[in-house]
Formats: sequence, C-alpha cells, structure tokens
Amino acid sequence: MFPRNSFNPVKRAIILSVGDELVLGQTVDTNSAWISAQLATVGCAVAAHATVPDDLRAIEEAILQSRDRCDYIIVSGGIGPTEDDLTRQALAAVMNVPLEMDHAWLKQLDEFFVKRGRPMPERNKIQAMIPKGAARIWNTCGTAAGIDAYVSDACRVIVMPGVPKEMREMFTRSVLPTLVVSSSGEVILSRTLHTFGLGESAVAEKLGDLMRRDRNPSVGTTVANGIVSLRVNARFGSKDEAQKQLDETTELCRAALGELIFGQDDETLQQVVGQLLKSSDRTVATAESCTGGLLSKMLTDVSGSSDYFQTGWITYSNQAKYERLGVSMEIINTYGAVSEPVVKAMSKHARRLAKSDFALAVSGVAGPTGGTPSKPVGTVCIALAFPPLPRGEGWGEGARDYQNSQILARTFNFPGDREWVRDRSAKMALTMLRYHLLGKPLPL
Amino acid sequence: MFPRNSFNPVKRAIILSVGDELVLGQTVDTNSAWISAQLATVGCAVAAHATVPDDLRAIEEAILQSRDRCDYIIVSGGIGPTEDDLTRQALAAVMNVPLEMDHAWLKQLDEFFVKRGRPMPERNKIQAMIPKGAARIWNTCGTAAGIDAYVSDACRVIVMPGVPKEMREMFTRSVLPTLVVSSSGEVILSRTLHTFGLGESAVAEKLGDLMRRDRNPSVGTTVANGIVSLRVNARFGSKDEAQKQLDETTELCRAALGELIFGQDDETLQQVVGQLLKSSDRTVATAESCTGGLLSKMLTDVSGSSDYFQTGWITYSNQAKYERLGVSMEIINTYGAVSEPVVKAMSKHARRLAKSDFALAVSGVAGPTGGTPSKPVGTVCIALAFPPLPRGEGWGEGARDYQNSQILARTFNFPGDREWVRDRSAKMALTMLRYHLLGKPLPL
Repeated sequence: MFPRNSFNPVKRAIILSVGDELVLGQTVDTNSAWISAQLATVGCAVAAHATVPDDLRAIEEAILQSRDRCDYIIVSGGIGPTEDDLTRQALAAVMNVPLEMDHAWLKQLDEFFVKRGRPMPERNKIQAMIPKGAARIWNTCGTAAGIDAYVSDACRVIVMPGVPKEMREMFTRSVLPTLVVSSSGEVILSRTLHTFGLGESAVAEKLGDLMRRDRNPSVGTTVANGIVSLRVNARFGSKDEAQKQLDETTELCRAALGELIFGQDDETLQQVVGQLLKSSDRTVATAESCTGGLLSKMLTDVSGSSDYFQTGWITYSNQAKYERLGVSMEIINTYGAVSEPVVKAMSKHARRLAKSDFALAVSGVAGPTGGTPSKPVGTVCIALAFPPLPRGEGWGEGARDYQNSQILARTFNFPGDREWVRDRSAKMALTMLRYHLLGKPLPL
Repeated sequence: MFPRNSFNPVKRAIILSVGDELVLGQTVDTNSAWISAQLATVGCAVAAHATVPDDLRAIEEAILQSRDRCDYIIVSGGIGPTEDDLTRQALAAVMNVPLEMDHAWLKQLDEFFVKRGRPMPERNKIQAMIPKGAARIWNTCGTAAGIDAYVSDACRVIVMPGVPKEMREMFTRSVLPTLVVSSSGEVILSRTLHTFGLGESAVAEKLGDLMRRDRNPSVGTTVANGIVSLRVNARFGSKDEAQKQLDETTELCRAALGELIFGQDDETLQQVVGQLLKSSDRTVATAESCTGGLLSKMLTDVSGSSDYFQTGWITYSNQAKYERLGVSMEIINTYGAVSEPVVKAMSKHARRLAKSDFALAVSGVAGPTGGTPSKPVGTVCIALAFPPLPRGEGWGEGARDYQNSQILARTFNFPGDREWVRDRSAKMALTMLRYHLLGKPLPL
C-alpha cells in the first residue's frame, strides 16, 4: 500500500499495543485505529499494527522486528505502576541502557497524590523511571509519563499510556506536533459524508467512477448501524491542494447522491433533523409502539432539543393506544396494531394532543417473535402527521389547525434482529420528517 | 505470558487481520479480540495480534514472520471478490503453490447468485480459488469460502472472511472444533459478573484478596457504560476442575458483593428487571423528562417486554408534565422541574393513569447546558411509585389501589457528558426498581 523506497519519502509508522487483556480478547484495542487515523491526517503511512502481551521478551521482540521497517514505533500500554507493566523495561533492554529516575516527574507524581490527600504508594515511583538518554513526555491527566526515544539512528519510539483518554490527550498535545511525517510535505485530508435509506451497493452504484480504486481523492464506503458513509481521502503535495481537491470531490458526491446525504463528519441524523426543525421554528411529537422510546431518545440526544420536542407517548399495548391517544379499537381490531391505519391514527392524535406542528408514529414487528406470514418480523409502519395547510407568510390558520392533519404513511420491511429493526425504524421516521422539511418527496 | 518450550505443551496462535481500512484507522478491529476470547475458552494461548494492509508483500511477510512462532495463524480479511483482496494470493506464494479452482464452491457461488436472481459477476470466481493442497472451509452466510492450509510441518493457517458475522459463524462451526489446543488438556473457563451503582475501586475494595494477581481463578474488573464487571478466569488441567474452581470463586464474589451483582455473562440490567417483573406478574409505567425515552427504550430492548410494560410518557417540557400527567404547575414553579416533589408527582400520576403496579419517573439536568450552582449538570431526581399496601396472598385491595401510591425518591449526581448522565439515570431507575422487587433497601 505504501511502498518504502527512495522515490517515496513518506514516513512510515508501526503501531504497537501492549496488554494481556488485549491478546486474551477481554478488551478491544481502539487505540491503534485512533492513532492510525491521526497519523493519516498528517500523511504518515501506517505499515502495520501489532499487539503483544505484558511479557518482557514479547515487547522487546516486537520493537526489534519493527525497528528496521519504519520511522516511528508508536506504543501504547504497559507503563502503569504494577509489576505486569513492562514496556519501559523492554525499551531500555532494546536500547541497552539502564532506567533512570526522572526527578521532575517524580515531583509531579508526589503532587498528584498530595492533591488527592493520600501518600504515594512506593510502587508508583517506577512511573518516574525512563531509559537513560530518552526524553519524558508530560501526562496531563494521569500518573504515567510517556517516553520518547531512539532505538536506531532512523527509528524513533514513542511510548504512551494504554488508557485511551490519557493516550489521546498526550498524542494530540505532545506527540503529533513533533512528528516529521514527510519530507515531500504530502498531506492526507479526509471527510466523511453520511447517507441513510439505501444499501451500500445501491449507494456505490450511484457513485460510479468516483469509487475507482486508483482515483485521488479516493471515495470509499463503510456501513455502521444502517448509515452508509462515504469516506473521501485526498492525498496531495500541499494542504491547500488537498483541501481544494477534497472540496471538489465532495461536491461530485453530493451531485450524485443529492438529499440522500444528510450530514458529514460528526453530524448525526437527529442533529440534522433538529436543526431543520429549529431553524423553521417547528415542533414534533412522537407516538411509539415497537421502537418503545428509541425515537424520542434519539430526538433528545441533542442538547437543546426541548426547543422542538416536548411530548412523546409510548403506547406499547393496544389498550394504551386507545386510552392514551384515542386510537379506536375498531381500527386496531380491523387492521391490526401494525398497519398504516393505526399509525395514521396514532400520529393524528399525537399531533392533536401535543399541539405540535408534526407528529411521528411507529408500529411494527421488532421480533424475534410476533411475526406472521403477512406481517413478518421487520414489518414496520411509520406515519408523519403535518398541518392541513402549509404555513404561509407568518402563521396561516391551517398551520395552527391541530384537529385536522395531512398524513403520510409508509410500510417498510427492515432486515436484521430486534435491535436493528428498532434502530432502522427510528432512523426512517427521522428521515421521513427530514425529507418533508426539505420539501422533497421520500425517494425510498 | 505463555512461554513456548518443551515443558509447556499449550498450543499457541497468532491472529492476523488484513485490511487497508484497519491500518488507516477507519475501522476498529474487533475480530482479533473476539477470536482471542474464543481461543481462551479452549486453552489455546494467543501470542500476538498483527494487522497489515491489503498488500501482497505485507501479508506474505506477516505469515512468514509468524510461521515459526506459533502453531496456528488465524487470518481474517482479504478474501473478497475485488482486486484489493490479496490474502489467498499471499498464502499461495508462501506455500509456493498455484491457486486452483474449487469446483464444489464455484457451484455454490453460482447457486448463491441464481437465488438472488442475478448473474454472478466474473470477478466473484476468484472466491472459489484456493491454494493447491489447501482445504476449503464452508461459508454458510457469504460468498467467500475459508482456507485451511499448512505453511510448515508445524504451522497451520486458517483464513476467514473479514466480515465479523461471517467470520464468527465460520470460526464457531468449522474452525474451533478442529483445533487441537493442548496436549496437557489445560483449559481456561471464564465467567463475567455484572454490577451497577458503585465505582470500580469501590467494587475492588469489597473484593479484597480475591483480586490478587497470582490467584487462580483470577478476578479482574472492567468498566463499560457504568457497568463494573468482574471477569473470573479459571485455568486448570481439566475442564471439570476449572468448572469447579470457577463456581467456587463466583460464589466468593457473590458473597462479597451481594445484590450489587445483577447478572452474569450476556445478561443485561433490563433483562433481569424484566424477569423479576414477569415472574411476579407485575407491570411498570414510565414518565421521563431528561432521559427522553431512554428508560422505556431499555425496558423494551427485551423481547416479550409487553408482558410488563405497556405505557410510557415523555414529558420533556413543564407544560407536558402538567397536561399529560397532571403534575401541578404550583409544584413545578415552587421546586423546579428537577426536584423530588416533581418526580414524585410524575410517578404517582403515571401509575394512576396507566394502572400499573409500579411507575418510574426521571427528571434531571443532562447538560451540557442548563446547570445551576444548586443543580449542576448531572443532577437527576428519580422516583419509584408502588402500591400503598403490599400484595399479600392473591391480590390485596391495597395492591390494586392506583389512586394512592407509596413513593421512593432519590437525587443523584452523575458524572460525565449528556450521554453518560442519561444512560446512568435510566440504569439507576431500573436499579431502584430491581432492589424494590428484591425486597432490599437501595444501598446507593
């Protein structure tokens, strides 16, 4: 992927994670992926990840094996205060030097414990020891100082704590700015665009040539929790060029996918819908059966959501649909609880009772039980109630008519288990509202 | 950790993950941890994890470097249909043999596409090629067959798809049963016990000597989403002995922690509370403010929860608390929306309206905004309404009195961000109900 030769001056890193809990499979290593993503932003190529147990020999061997294959070995883990923390000893052995006390950090450790009103345990002193000739890296949120050392003329080793919060803070503040990543100044900039509603292959088809493997900027797709995301990576000789190319490819993706793209980078569907409601000064209420509160939970994930969401009902039984919302038992008995007439009634009554601009209602078969041949597990009906007349200049009477609603209802069949079906149902409800707020027909 | 010598006949494995998205940090590798945990259950020691990009040479080198260091190399990823999938080619190169068509799998592939009503793309045929002399491993849920081969007399390589679902199914069904893990028969059995309510160090303090590092079975703690879990690992010469020791240490943990332990292994708090409600034939309703539906969502995570949960309200505004539940504006104005009098009223009215045995109400400052000096972010009030008289033999009148309730209310201060505060609030509400159902006072 990133051949190392004289024609390619990009710096290479190998990421090493240390810990018994990792090789025993008791903890998933998230540090390696996080560090890789950080290195990518500055154009440093990651050649490999390696994970070894808390074993002196294993750590030594891993450092030795990596030494001639990269410019940076980025290590996390194994510098705690207990006897199974052996990374500093292994590094000293590879460097063939003793460990020395770092008195500045020892003082810092003392103060750390004084602040907490307890004496420093003797064993914590090891955390102020670093290999002779190495530099200490400050830790602003823990007792383990980092280590910065060379294990050959060309290979620099950075050792950081394994605790993700401490590692991330140390890497961002004290490590990343010191890495010389590319003598050519090559830079990778990335952006992620999020879609919901179509599968990965359907999104890929719409993107066509944009996904060609040899394209730069490259466009790749990933899926997580039903959200198909496009990752755009631009690798160019300067930051300005990378930024310009990234923006151009982003526009091409938007042209190919239109409103299917709901947001980018850290934006969530519920934030985007919330923003649309807030900016148009509208409110939404919810009436949930199979999602059982998940839709309301998503809406209220967003700080400030009380501006546009005040009321929700979870009517998990038929009786609750009748007593709480006024859905007639006749409709329920005629069409079944999972039916468009029922969700239409739920949304209409929720809008009426809450006096909200919109109301979303969801009823479905989340599974694993409860499916029938005509309504298998995954069958979900969703309705959106909205004002009988659009809001014109100012508030028209029709927009404030809560007794009458227009209603859009749709039936979906979502794949997957109970958690999937509920998650997709809530996201699809938000998506129906999003398209309505954008004034576009739902293309799904 | 697991020295390899003639006195220690335990088999060793190295786990290799292949994929650009992994070394670029766009995807977190969960396969390695999962496979490690599976191998631990049969006593196979994992010596290391390694991750390399979709690069022929890098994959070859990783296999060659591992070959003399372990008995099994367990590979996932790089056997898809596209040109960047190179694991099978790398394995063939290490074995110094050509790739050959596996006609049985080709037929299977054909049928796979016929079922989906579309022709097999030419490029998918590569998925039926395996190195000469290797065995194919069946894939019951995808198009990539696995590969089982030897790269030396002593080193066996297993190649599986990178898609977690396919890999897990293949590993469980076709790989794990074929591994000869230990000629000494040494076995590791594990169990996880879950607690909620105390911090990790407080739990550790109660466990005392049970957490000694040299103890076997060992007891370690991990924290995820506020749940402090104890992992008990028993490593013994036979499965019977390991099971007996595991059970004994589990009992010692239970003796030390009592009702703080709510469940074990895959059990969730909402399952356990649901089971307690179901077995005593009781129902619960919810009235949520800051959790915004999360508490109801958790209750309905459990299939069959309609037996004990039918109705919930999300009353996110003061107006909604008054209109939907009948909480008096005077109480709200006097004490504030985040107060014990308000959650008491919410729970009382929710129980009355829903005619449920119990009602839980939550109101708090989830943040990041809305905090005040007297009620900072993280302040959460929770109330549990329950029948005025306990249910005696059969149904006593007091148990069916929904107009009057006894109410337990508590105020908590949860640390962390909005997501944490909401999550801990919902779990604490479930915990209050759990202790009540167990007939024990809340020790938190």
